[in-house]
Amino acid sequence: MRILIVNVNTTKSMTEAIGRQARRFASPGTEVVTVTPAFGAESIESNFESYLAAVGIIDAVLKYEEPFDAVIQAGYGEHGREGLQEVLDVPVVDITEAAASTALYLGYKYSVVTTLEHCVSMIENRLKVAGLNTRCASVRATSTSVLGLESNPEQAVDSIVREAAAAVANDGAEVICLGCGGMADLEERVKQKLGGVPVIDGVAAAVQVAESLVKLQLKTSKIKAYARPRQKALVGFPLL
Amino acid sequence: MRILIVNVNTTKSMTEAIGRQARRFASPGTEVVTVTPAFGAESIESNFESYLAAVGIIDAVLKYEEPFDAVIQAGYGEHGREGLQEVLDVPVVDITEAAASTALYLGYKYSVVTTLEHCVSMIENRLKVAGLNTRCASVRATSTSVLGLESNPEQAVDSIVREAAAAVANDGAEVICLGCGGMADLEERVKQKLGGVPVIDGVAAAVQVAESLVKLQLKTSKIKAYARPRQKALVGFPLL
Amino acid sequence: MRILIVNVNTTKSMTEAIGRQARRFASPGTEVVTVTPAFGAESIESNFESYLAAVGIIDAVLKYEEPFDAVIQAGYGEHGREGLQEVLDVPVVDITEAAASTALYLGYKYSVVTTLEHCVSMIENRLKVAGLNTRCASVRATSTSVLGLESNPEQAVDSIVREAAAAVANDGAEVICLGCGGMADLEERVKQKLGGVPVIDGVAAAVQVAESLVKLQLKTSKIKAYARPRQKALVGFPLL
Amino acid sequence: MRILIVNVNTTKSMTEAIGRQARRFASPGTEVVTVTPAFGAESIESNFESYLAAVGIIDAVLKYEEPFDAVIQAGYGEHGREGLQEVLDVPVVDITEAAASTALYLGYKYSVVTTLEHCVSMIENRLKVAGLNTRCASVRATSTSVLGLESNPEQAVDSIVREAAAAVANDGAEVICLGCGGMADLEERVKQKLGGVPVIDGVAAAVQVAESLVKLQLKTSKIKAYARPRQKALVGFPLL
Amino acid sequence: MRILIVNVNTTKSMTEAIGRQARRFASPGTEVVTVTPAFGAESIESNFESYLAAVGIIDAVLKYEEPFDAVIQAGYGEHGREGLQEVLDVPVVDITEAAASTALYLGYKYSVVTTLEHCVSMIENRLKVAGLNTRCASVRATSTSVLGLESNPEQAVDSIVREAAAAVANDGAEVICLGCGGMADLEERVKQKLGGVPVIDGVAAAVQVAESLVKLQLKTSKIKAYARPRQKALVGFPLL
Amino acid sequence: MRILIVNVNTTKSMTEAIGRQARRFASPGTEVVTVTPAFGAESIESNFESYLAAVGIIDAVLKYEEPFDAVIQAGYGEHGREGLQEVLDVPVVDITEAAASTALYLGYKYSVVTTLEHCVSMIENRLKVAGLNTRCASVRATSTSVLGLESNPEQAVDSIVREAAAAVANDGAEVICLGCGGMADLEERVKQKLGGVPVIDGVAAAVQVAESLVKLQLKTSKIKAYARPRQKALVGFPLL
Repeated sequence: MRILIVNVNTTKSMTEAIGRQARRFASPGTEVVTVTPAFGAESIESNFESYLAAVGIIDAVLKYEEPFDAVIQAGYGEHGREGLQEVLDVPVVDITEAAASTALYLGYKYSVVTTLEHCVSMIENRLKVAGLNTRCASVRATSTSVLGLESNPEQAVDSIVREAAAAVANDGAEVICLGCGGMADLEERVKQKLGGVPVIDGVAAAVQVAESLVKLQLKTSKIKAYARPRQKALVGFPLL
Repeated sequence: MRILIVNVNTTKSMTEAIGRQARRFASPGTEVVTVTPAFGAESIESNFESYLAAVGIIDAVLKYEEPFDAVIQAGYGEHGREGLQEVLDVPVVDITEAAASTALYLGYKYSVVTTLEHCVSMIENRLKVAGLNTRCASVRATSTSVLGLESNPEQAVDSIVREAAAAVANDGAEVICLGCGGMADLEERVKQKLGGVPVIDGVAAAVQVAESLVKLQLKTSKIKAYARPRQKALVGFPLL
Repeated sequence: MRILIVNVNTTKSMTEAIGRQARRFASPGTEVVTVTPAFGAESIESNFESYLAAVGIIDAVLKYEEPFDAVIQAGYGEHGREGLQEVLDVPVVDITEAAASTALYLGYKYSVVTTLEHCVSMIENRLKVAGLNTRCASVRATSTSVLGLESNPEQAVDSIVREAAAAVANDGAEVICLGCGGMADLEERVKQKLGGVPVIDGVAAAVQVAESLVKLQLKTSKIKAYARPRQKALVGFPLL
Repeated sequence: MRILIVNVNTTKSMTEAIGRQARRFASPGTEVVTVTPAFGAESIESNFESYLAAVGIIDAVLKYEEPFDAVIQAGYGEHGREGLQEVLDVPVVDITEAAASTALYLGYKYSVVTTLEHCVSMIENRLKVAGLNTRCASVRATSTSVLGLESNPEQAVDSIVREAAAAVANDGAEVICLGCGGMADLEERVKQKLGGVPVIDGVAAAVQVAESLVKLQLKTSKIKAYARPRQKALVGFPLL
Repeated sequence: MRILIVNVNTTKSMTEAIGRQARRFASPGTEVVTVTPAFGAESIESNFESYLAAVGIIDAVLKYEEPFDAVIQAGYGEHGREGLQEVLDVPVVDITEAAASTALYLGYKYSVVTTLEHCVSMIENRLKVAGLNTRCASVRATSTSVLGLESNPEQAVDSIVREAAAAVANDGAEVICLGCGGMADLEERVKQKLGGVPVIDGVAAAVQVAESLVKLQLKTSKIKAYARPRQKALVGFPLL
Repeated sequence: MRILIVNVNTTKSMTEAIGRQARRFASPGTEVVTVTPAFGAESIESNFESYLAAVGIIDAVLKYEEPFDAVIQAGYGEHGREGLQEVLDVPVVDITEAAASTALYLGYKYSVVTTLEHCVSMIENRLKVAGLNTRCASVRATSTSVLGLESNPEQAVDSIVREAAAAVANDGAEVICLGCGGMADLEERVKQKLGGVPVIDGVAAAVQVAESLVKLQLKTSKIKAYARPRQKALVGFPLL
C-alpha cells in the first residue's frame, strides 16, 4: 500500500523528517510518500497559518498524481482534515487524533506537550471536535517554537521533558503525546529522559492508523458529513 | 463607525443581499461596507469550500484598504473566524455565534434551520467550539441548497417553515436561527408564516454584536489564543 | 427606546452608579431609567438575599408605570431572570449572561472576578443554567464585600486586579468579567492596572444586548418555558 | 425527630395531602409537621410563581416556632432550596432531588412526569444544577395542571400513566419520578396501572432522605456556598 | 428489616468493622448481617482485585441462605454493583454512590479522600457511570493502604485530614467522603480534627439509603438494564 | 508478533469464529492465538455474566503459557479490561473501544448495533468510561441473542441491517459498529445489504490496534491507574 503524508507547512526539511519517522514505523510493503504544500507558512503556530495550511494540503493532495491508499495530515491541532475527507475516498488520518486515540489504550489520562502557548486552544478545540478530549488531562506548551525544535533540539528536548513531567505530577497524565509534527526526531531522547511514561509521536501513530484502515478496507463514509462536495464554480482553486 | 462584512462565497448578489440586511439593522452613524472574496466557491456547503472561504475572507479583509471598526464573517457554520481574530485588532463576529448568543436571551432552547444535511455537522462543530451548543435543541436541514434560496425563494421559505415547526414540535425549540447567510432576504416571510416563534437572522444579529463591541471599546484579547501571528515566511499569501 | 434597569438590592446609591454606567454606554436616543426594589437586602451576597431580590425586582418592574422596551437585571449571579421573562413581553437581560456572551467574542476563555467566596457557586450555577459556562476558566472571589466596593474602592480595585491577574496566569483566562453590578465604577481603574486584557462590566454589556434585541424587534418566546403565567390566586403579591 | 415540610404553594388542602403522604413513609418516632406559606400562589407552574414560593417558604420556615431537625421543600423543580440551606443549620431536602437521587439506585435511566409543559425547563434546570441530570432520560408533561390533579384525579392518573409508558418505550426510562408534590395521592393508582416500573413520589423519598441525614448527624456545610448570610439591612422581610 | 452487607475483600476483621459501623447507624428494628466473600483479595486496591471482588460478592450474596431486604456493597469504587442488581430483586446499594448522593444534600461540591493513588481512577469511573461526578471537586489519595488503615490508624487519620483540608482549600470541596469501606472506624477522629466540614462514611450512608428504599417498597427495575440474566450454562459458578 | 485473543464466554465455536476473523485481518508475520475462559457463561448478555467473564479472562490469560505481545479482549461492552491491563505489561485492546476509535476516523457520528436491549447500558457505560461516547449517535439492540447469531444467521443479519438503517435514518449515524464479538462472521453480509455505510467489526479493528501498539513499541503506562497490583493474599485465584 502507499500512504501519502502531507506536511502542513512549507518547510521541506520538516517534510523529510516526518517522512523518516513514518518510514521507521511503516510495515514492510507500505510505501510512504510525502508532499509539501506549495502554499502556506514555513511553520504553523496560529489559526491563521493553519487555515492557509488547510487549503495548501488539500491542493497538494489533489495535485499528487500517483495513486495512494490513505492520507496522513501531519500537523498537530491543524484545520483542514474534514475538507480532505470530503474530496477523497481513501481514509484521512490527522496526527492529533491518531496520537490521542492511541493514548487512550495506554493509560487513564494523557497530556499533550506542544510548542507555543498560542497553539493550546487549537489543540484543545481539535480534540473537542474529535470527541477525544474527555481523557485529556492537559495541553501544555514548552514555549519552544516549531522551527526551534530543529535549530536547538537539546533545549527543545529539555523543555518537553519538563512539561511532560509536570503533566504527570500535577495533571494526572500517564501518557504523553508529542504535540507537534516536528517533534518526531526528538521522540527517542524524550522517552529516554522521561523514563517509564509512554510517549506517543503523532506521525508514528498515524502511520499505524492509516495502515489499519486500509487493511480493514474501510473508507470515509460518504453519506452525510463528509460527502463529496457538489460540482460548483471555484475561483482561484486549484492554486496556481 | 464602519463595519466590514465579508461574505464567505464569491457570489456578489449574495454579498449585496447580506449588505442590505445589515443596513436594515445598522444604527444611524454606522456605515456598513461589504467585501466579496476573490477566492473560493460560489456557495459554501462543505468543509472543503469552507476552508477555501477561510483563506478567501482573511485575504479579502487584509486587502481592504479603508479603516473599519469591526468585521462580520457572514457565513453560517464556516471555518476561519479564529484566523481573522489573529490578524486583526478589531472585533470579529461570526454570524453563527451571533445568532446563537442572541437566541439564548429569548428562549430556553433554540434550533438552527440550515440548507443541506451536509452542513449540519459543520454547524454543530462550530457551536461546540464556541461553547454555545448546550441549549441548542437541534440543527435541521431543509435540503434546499444555498443558491436555491435565491432561485426558488417560495419553496425555500416553505421548507424552512416546515423544519422550524418540526423543531418546535419535536425538539423543544422555542427560538429559530436561520442557518445560512443567504436566508436574510427570507426572514420576514418565515416570521410571518411561523408566527409567534422568534426568528433570528445571523447577519442582523451580528451587526448588533459588532456595534456593541465597538461601543464598549472592546477588542480581541491578544494575550494567548488570538495573538498576532509571528512574522514568518509565507508562500502564496496574500493571494495574487 | 427606553431601557429599564432594575437594581437587585435596595441601596439607591448603587442604583445610581448602575444608571450612570448604563448611560455611559447607551446609544443616543436610548433613555435609561432605573428602579430600586422596595423589598430585599441592601446588598446581595447569598442565595437567600438573591431570592428576596427575585421577588423584589419582579414587583418593582411590574409596578413601574411608564412603558419600556427592555429590562436589565443588574445583579451578578442572581435569581429571578426567568420570572421576569414570564411576566413581561419585552426582552429581559441578565448582566451575568450579558458579560459572558460578550466575553465569548473576545477570547478563548474568560474568568469572572466577583466579591465574596459565597457568591462563586451562585455565579457558576447561573452560567451553567445559561449554557455559557463551557468557556469559563474560573470564577474567583476577591473577599471584598459588595458594599466594600463603594466604601474602599482603592482596595477593591487592587483585589480585583490581583484575582484577574491570577486568572490569566493560572486558569487560562484571556478576558475578565467584573462579577458584581457594583463594580461598574471601578471598571476604568481595573482596566488601566490590568493592561492588555479585555475587561467587561456586565451593566455596560447588558445595555448593548438590550438595545440590540430591541433593534432586532425580538421578544421573549412565549410558547413554552417563558409563557405568561396563568391567572391564579396570589397572596401577598404585588407587595404592599 | 421532627421534620418540617413546607409546601411551596398556598393551598392548604395540598399541604395536607403532602403531610399525609409524608406520614405514610415516616419512621416511628418521626413527627411530621407541615407549614403553608402565607405568601405566594395557589399552585406553582411557572418561574414567577416559583420565585414567590422561594421567599414564601423561607419566611414560613423562619417563622415556624417549634424546633425541627430537617426541612423538606415539597415542590418539584422549584427555586429556593439554596436559600433555605443558608438560613438554617439543619438539613434541607428538595423533593426534586430526593426523587432523582432515589431513582439512581433503581435503574439505569429515569424519567420525570410532570404537569404542564411550562414546568419542563424548570425541572431540567434544577436537575442540572443539582448534578442529577446525567441519567435523566426525559422530563415529560401531562398537560394536567397542578390543581387539576386534585379536581380530576382519574384523568390525571391516565395522563401520567400515558407519559410514563411513553418514557419507557421511547426514552429508555426504567424508573418514573412523579414530577409534582401534588401527585402524592395518585402514586398508588399510577403504580398499579403502570405495573413493573418503579414509581417514586418525591415527598416520600424526601422523608427518607431527611430522616437519613438526621440519623447520620449530618448538617449543611457552612464553609462556603451555604454559609449563613451576613447580618445586613433587609426591607420587607420577614414578610408581614 | 434485614440488611445484608457484603464486604468486598476477604479480611474478616474489616467485615466486622463495617458491621459495627452499620449497626451504629441502623434504625431500631433493622437487623444488619454481614458476609465475607470466600473468593478474592484481602484488600482491594486495583481493578484486578476489584473484579475478583465483583464475582466474590455475587457468589457470597447468592449463597447467603437467610432472607434479606436489601444489600449493601461495602467497597469504595469497586466493580460488581450492576451484577448484584441483576441477580437480586431487592435493592442494592453501593457505598461509593451512597456517600456521593448524601454529599449532594450538604454542600455545593464534595471531595473523596481515598487510600492509594491507584484507586483514584476507579472511583472517578464509578462516579461517572453513576452520574454522580458533576459536583465532585476531586478524588484525592492519602498513600495509606487499605490494610494500613487498620495497622496504623493514627497516621491514617492524619493523612486523611491532610488531604481533606487540601480538598477544601484548593479544590472547592465543602463536604468530604471517606473513600474506603475500611475508614469507618476513623470517621469520628477525622471529623474532630477537621472540624466544621461534614464528613461522610459510605457504610453509614448506605445503611440509610438501603433502609429508605425498603421503607419506600422500591425495588430494582427489571425491565431493561438490570433484568434478571437469562438461564444459561455457567462454568465454575457458583464458586466451589 | 503473537497476539492473544481471549474470548469472554466459554463457547469454543465462538472463540474459533473470533480467531478466524482475527486471522483474516492480521498482518503477515502476526500469529493469532486464542483462548477460551475455563470459567464463566456460554454467552454474555448481562453484567452478571460479564463480571464472571472479567475474572475468567484474567485467569485464562495469566495461565496462557506461551509469550505474547498483545491481548485482545473479544467481548463487546464487557467488564475486565482495566484488570488485564494491570496484571500484564503488554497492551490490552478491548473490541468495544477498538471499534469506536476506528469509527471516529470514518464519519462524524457512529452507532453500535448490538444483540439484546439488556446490553445497551453496558455498552454505553463502557464507551463513557473510555471517553469514546461523544460521537456515538446511538446504541441499538436487535433482540437477537448472542447464540442466536450462530443458530439463525439469516435472521440475525436482517435484524442488524434493520437497526443499522434506522440508526442512519433517525440517529444521524454514518458508520456502524457491530456490537458483539459473535457478529464477526456476519460482517460481510451486513456490509453487502447495507451498502455504502462503513461497517466495523470489533475483532478486526482490535487486531489492527493491537498490531499498531506492538509496532510502536508502546506498552501500558504503569505509573498510576494500571500499575501492577501489590503482592497480597488472594483466595480462590488463580481459579482451579
